[in-house]
This record gives sequence, structure tokens and C-alpha cells, in this order.
Amino acid sequence: MGEHAADPTHPRYRSLLMRHRLEEAASKGMLAGSALIAHGRGEAYDYLLGEQTIPSALEATREAAARLLAAKKPIISLNGNAVALAGKDLLEVAQLLSCPVEVNIFYRTPERMAALLSHLEEIKDMHDIDVEILGAAPDGRIPGLEGPRANCHIDGILNADVVLVPLEDGDRCEALVAMGKEVLVVDLNPLSRTAKMATVTIVDELSRVASNLVQLIPTAPISTEWDNPAILQSALSYIVTTMASFAEK
Amino acid sequence: MGEHAADPTHPRYRSLLMRHRLEEAASKGMLAGSALIAHGRGEAYDYLLGEQTIPSALEATREAAARLLAAKKPIISLNGNAVALAGKDLLEVAQLLSCPVEVNIFYRTPERMAALLSHLEEIKDMHDIDVEILGAAPDGRIPGLEGPRANCHIDGILNADVVLVPLEDGDRCEALVAMGKEVLVVDLNPLSRTAKMATVTIVDELSRVASNLVQLIPTAPISTEWDNPAILQSALSYIVTTMASFAEK
Repeated sequence: MGEHAADPTHPRYRSLLMRHRLEEAASKGMLAGSALIAHGRGEAYDYLLGEQTIPSALEATREAAARLLAAKKPIISLNGNAVALAGKDLLEVAQLLSCPVEVNIFYRTPERMAALLSHLEEIKDMHDIDVEILGAAPDGRIPGLEGPRANCHIDGILNADVVLVPLEDGDRCEALVAMGKEVLVVDLNPLSRTAKMATVTIVDELSRVASNLVQLIPTAPISTEWDNPAILQSALSYIVTTMASFAEK
Repeated sequence: MGEHAADPTHPRYRSLLMRHRLEEAASKGMLAGSALIAHGRGEAYDYLLGEQTIPSALEATREAAARLLAAKKPIISLNGNAVALAGKDLLEVAQLLSCPVEVNIFYRTPERMAALLSHLEEIKDMHDIDVEILGAAPDGRIPGLEGPRANCHIDGILNADVVLVPLEDGDRCEALVAMGKEVLVVDLNPLSRTAKMATVTIVDELSRVASNLVQLIPTAPISTEWDNPAILQSALSYIVTTMASFAEK
């Protein structure tokens, strides 16, 4: 960890802590090289959000919580970055929802899958969390996708009605939407294809989102009429206003 | 490389190619984990520039070329990302200027230094470039910096009057400016401390900058009165306008 990150009063403490978690996960073989680059892109957008949960993002998180609670068969899809940044809180969310999580990664290798699954089992043991972890033996495929990234569990992502997919890529988000699922995503770039494609887009940093979900789910929020383009617009306006204010300084 | 990157007509070909170069360099041990994250931050800002050299960046590149040509003792400082993204073109720039390059990295380890130095020697051999490469045996220190990142060559960075430092961190940029040097930097974030601190800031992607320098130096441009805050303002306005236009769509 950098020299500053050990000090929780440092204004960028949390951002530096997340960077540290990613680097540690990389050293454990949990991540593809592209995962660190993707995290950096997220850092840049989060910086433009002031590294905080903006009001429209909290609204989207509340909506996601409501839809997960109302789902018949919800699931949380986890990739390497999601496990590294917010593994514990996302397992807690799954426990609150009594649903499984499924490890589903873009560059699937046996080594990376094993590293992720064992890291999640460790978290479960350490925090006494009881959640089913899928991903080891996928027996289905997401229609419309090619290669190993289409692999999934029939009893997991394939048959779920509502999927929380933090940090998803555009193709897979599109494929899940095409299957008729409600797709709830976390994406710091309000202009990304994933952000535009999803049912509900939370424009926020994942560890903050996961922690907010842990708080919100027990309050049993109710789903609303949801205007996702309006929420993206709101996030984008926030970023533009922030940058314009920098420009005036 | 991703499925698209092999196709030069793909609109994001160049960005995907740079990502590939970084991942390859990482696998050769040339980069710290933080280097990939830093590249991702750059990708996000470059996306907001439309992945192109904007007019104010070309102006800054021309000014940098002029100052390097007018210098008594110019030098190019190279870190891991600079070597990975634009090693060949930056060595060509040094050859055009008849100046040395110096490998000077933030997280200095013997293994990473060796990987970078041997990669540069390979490029020299392959392209028949005759440039002195410093960095292996630093005998001086940059005043005001702590730890191994202060190490430099007396006959290199320490005594240079004009330093091109692509992708520099804020502290070192500040330390070099405090030594009275002209510091020319490449930084995709016009709000960064490095960008604000430098004598001339080129807000552009490094491989484009290096290629532009190779073109511009033989035209022997002349240095001007230089208003760096105005150039940063111009880059920021460009980004804000781009995002605002996305917001209107």
C-alpha cells in the first residue's frame, strides 16, 4: 500500500485502500491484467464524482435493493474485481436475500476460478456467512455469447429473473437483458454500453454500493417506476458540473 | 489481445493496442501493479478526448519539441509505462536530439530495472538506434525526494536543464521544477498535480505524443511565450464540452 493509504484521515484513503485490495488480489492470481486497467478507468470516473455516492446513485441502489427483494430467483454475479473490492459485503447481501452468488469471469482460466472460489470460501468461514457459491461447474450457457465467458449455472444465472452484475462488460449485459432478465449493474462510467443497456444502473464505486445495499435491504424498500436514462443523465450532469467547476478555478 | 484489437479499422484499435502493450510489458516483469491501474485512469481521460490529439495538445507538443531542441542538456526520463507504450519512438526522439534517456521508476526493484533496460537495448538493436541509456547505476539523488525513487544519474537527470518526463508522478515533477529545470510532461488528466506543476503539459496519450515529436523535431520549431495554465484550461474545456454533448444525446 502507498505511504498515505494507512492513514484513514487521508482524503483519498478509501480510493487508495481499494487500489491496494486490487493489487493484492492480482498478486493472488485472482485477476486478469485487464482487470487492473479496468479498475484504473473506474478510479478516473470516481475522481470526477468526488469519490462519493451521489444522490442519484443512492436512488438507483435503493431501486436495485427493492428489485432484488421482489425477485423470485435473484442472483449476484461476481467477477474478479467484485470479489477483490467488495467480496465480503456482496456475500452479506446474498445472505440477506437468501440467494446464491455465481462467479462468472470474462477471461476464464481454471487457476483464476480456483483462486476466486477459495477466496470467497475463506470470507464465508471468517465471517460466518452462509451462502451458496456457484461457478465451479457451469452446466449452462448464456445464449448469444461465444467462448468460456458464456458458461453459467442453470440453477444460477441462467434461470434467475433478477441479476445483480457489478462491473459487467457490455456484451454480457446485453445478452442477459435479451434473455428477459432484470439486470442491475454498477458502472462508474455513465456513458458505457453496460450503463445504457441495464435495467437499473448504479453509477458508483462498488465497495460503497455493496455497503449501501447491506444497509438498505433490511429497510425493505419498494420498487418504483424506474427511468434509467434519466438516472444516467443525472450522473453525467453531475460529472460535467464538477469538471466545469474545476475549469473555473 | 482482445478479439477486436487485431483489426486496425476498429475505431478503438489504437487504444486496444496500447492496452495490449501494457499487458505484455506486465507479463515481462517491466511494470508494477499500480502501472496498469494508472494506464486505466489514462484510458478513461483519453476516451473523453475522443482518443485523438486535440489542437491544444499539438501546440504543447510543438512547444516541448522547441524547448528540447533549445536545451543545453536535454534528457528523456522513462518509466515502465513509457517504455511499454512508446519505447521505440522515444528512443528515436532522443536520437534526433542527440541526448540520453534515463530509466527512472517509482517502485524501483533490480528485476524491474533489468527488464526495462534489456527491453530498451532490444529496441535499439532491432531498429539500429544509437542512444545512451542511463539508469542502471545512479550516482546522484533528486533533492527533496525520499527513497529509491530519488535515485538518478549526475550526468543524466540531475544536471539536465530540460527534462521530458512522460507520465510523471506529482512529487517528482515538483522536485524537478524546484531544481530550476524546465519540466515537460505528458498527462491525460489536466487536473492532476503533475499537469499543474509542469513547465509544459501535453494532455495527450503518450504513443501519439511520441509519434508527433518524431515528426515535429526535424521541422525545428522555435519556443514561444508559453501560458501553461491556459493550455490546461483549453484541454479541460474540451473534455467538458465532449461530456456535455454526450449528456445532450
